[in-house]
Amino acid sequence: MAVVVSLPDQEWIAELGVLPGVDLVHWDLKAPPERDDIEVVIPPYMGSPTRLEQLANVPRLRAVQLVTAGYEHAVPYLPEGVVLANGAGIHDTSTAELALALSLASQRGIPDFVRAQETGQWLRYAGAPSLADRRVLVVGYGSIGRAIAKRLNASEAHVTAVASRARQGDDLVERVHGVDELPTLLPDAEVVILIVPLTERTRHLVDAEFLSALPDGALVVNVARGGVIDTDALLAECSAGRLRAALDVTDPEPLPAEHPLWRAPGVLISPHIGGASSAFVPRALAFLKRELTAYADGQGLSHVVHPS
Amino acid sequence: MAVVVSLPDQEWIAELGVLPGVDLVHWDLKAPPERDDIEVVIPPYMGSPTRLEQLANVPRLRAVQLVTAGYEHAVPYLPEGVVLANGAGIHDTSTAELALALSLASQRGIPDFVRAQETGQWLRYAGAPSLADRRVLVVGYGSIGRAIAKRLNASEAHVTAVASRARQGDDLVERVHGVDELPTLLPDAEVVILIVPLTERTRHLVDAEFLSALPDGALVVNVARGGVIDTDALLAECSAGRLRAALDVTDPEPLPAEHPLWRAPGVLISPHIGGASSAFVPRALAFLKRELTAYADGQGLSHVVHPS
Repeated sequence: MAVVVSLPDQEWIAELGVLPGVDLVHWDLKAPPERDDIEVVIPPYMGSPTRLEQLANVPRLRAVQLVTAGYEHAVPYLPEGVVLANGAGIHDTSTAELALALSLASQRGIPDFVRAQETGQWLRYAGAPSLADRRVLVVGYGSIGRAIAKRLNASEAHVTAVASRARQGDDLVERVHGVDELPTLLPDAEVVILIVPLTERTRHLVDAEFLSALPDGALVVNVARGGVIDTDALLAECSAGRLRAALDVTDPEPLPAEHPLWRAPGVLISPHIGGASSAFVPRALAFLKRELTAYADGQGLSHVVHPS
Repeated sequence: MAVVVSLPDQEWIAELGVLPGVDLVHWDLKAPPERDDIEVVIPPYMGSPTRLEQLANVPRLRAVQLVTAGYEHAVPYLPEGVVLANGAGIHDTSTAELALALSLASQRGIPDFVRAQETGQWLRYAGAPSLADRRVLVVGYGSIGRAIAKRLNASEAHVTAVASRARQGDDLVERVHGVDELPTLLPDAEVVILIVPLTERTRHLVDAEFLSALPDGALVVNVARGGVIDTDALLAECSAGRLRAALDVTDPEPLPAEHPLWRAPGVLISPHIGGASSAFVPRALAFLKRELTAYADGQGLSHVVHPS
């Protein structure tokens, strides 16, 4: 008997083709499913989380496989006894690339050039701080953090990795520092890149105290979740011209048009597009092919996050 | 007897400190030198090339060491029998970093976000083309080209290197293609990064024919010299919305305020700041330390470009 797996996208079903032991069916969670034999649900990548209420209408549901790294939104909708797996690794490339794009653009003055371009102004611009030689703190050292570190190493930056607990290093960094070491690390950090999951422990991790420990002119890059930063505290530091920021995520999000963060000096904002690039689909398809084939083979899903 | 070397910057002289066999003296070429025993002149990094007329007033001059990669501007001022060396490698990091910054910014939509930020607009922006997975042609494969290729590899792009002549590859690319292979390479190139010296052979290398061979939507990045591109041909392709461009150099340069290239869609322009970042000075000092010490030791300069 093949495992029945629902996918919200007909193109993805076509791209995945025939997977041994897997029966792919289309279901977008906008209404109850048309069949009662679905065992694994892959919810839509985008769209309101409330669609997940439909999971209650899947009698033989055993697993929900997300294609996002974040999974907190899905936990409340998970029926008893159903496992939840996240899309670990799928967004590494796209998100790490955006972290680098935001860092490089901020360091080398791209926003200034874009604004000068509107009036045809050839700026006299001497000696921007390169990303090379900068001391960069990568806060959050899972698979996206590693993908960021790999790019920073190639950029000749000096990378310091921070995770929830200190541990040995890998091929990219000598050691991984614990988050409790931040007070001693922050005064040396010229760039801080945030890529931690949003949890009760990381909410407002970047508060007034964290920010005040950074040296003048430091750049804070957030490709994690808006709630990791205390927005008011960041706004105060940027408005004063003491710190700079490049943010793919904000709190509140979307940022209202009248929010002063839009116009604070040295702040670059992208509209939460870290994972949204052409790098996503091929990696998501390769991931699903691997996971669903293994599941049908009785091996279970590799990235179960709940129950943890 | 120590070799007398003139430098245009007191800070650099202080930073270099004591070099064995070398006597560092200050001379900025704004007036004839105050002493007649200068043997090696390091001209100012910036400033008008006509200052090099002062080289005629250095009776014991044997070598001119530039800290720029380009050297064409200095050749006409070179007294008979004096060798000219360029600053090969000094700008690799800074220029390669800008090539990546321009490529990433263009691919991931940074200019759109900067413009949207002015009115506090949270753009709905789906699926920009990543730099990862792109087929990138690096045209010019000297030391800066290699530094670009290293960064592109870490970005998961597919790099094809092109130099004046085909040759074996290295640790970064499987082989180096000859410029005569461009007609077969261009139709597959999604991004083209130009980093060739400007010579009679490379002037307008990127002309209407070159551009028409590129696929729709391709991005042309120029961190070489403006004259490598036929500006009118590029403007025609960009104005039509068929190609995109990210240019650190233009022809004419500076680009006049009324030039239509400023406002062509999909065009990002930076004001020739490829080499101008904080990465420059430490690498220039390390280079001069190495070269001048070797010269004083009788080994000659490593990067003599004229007579070639």
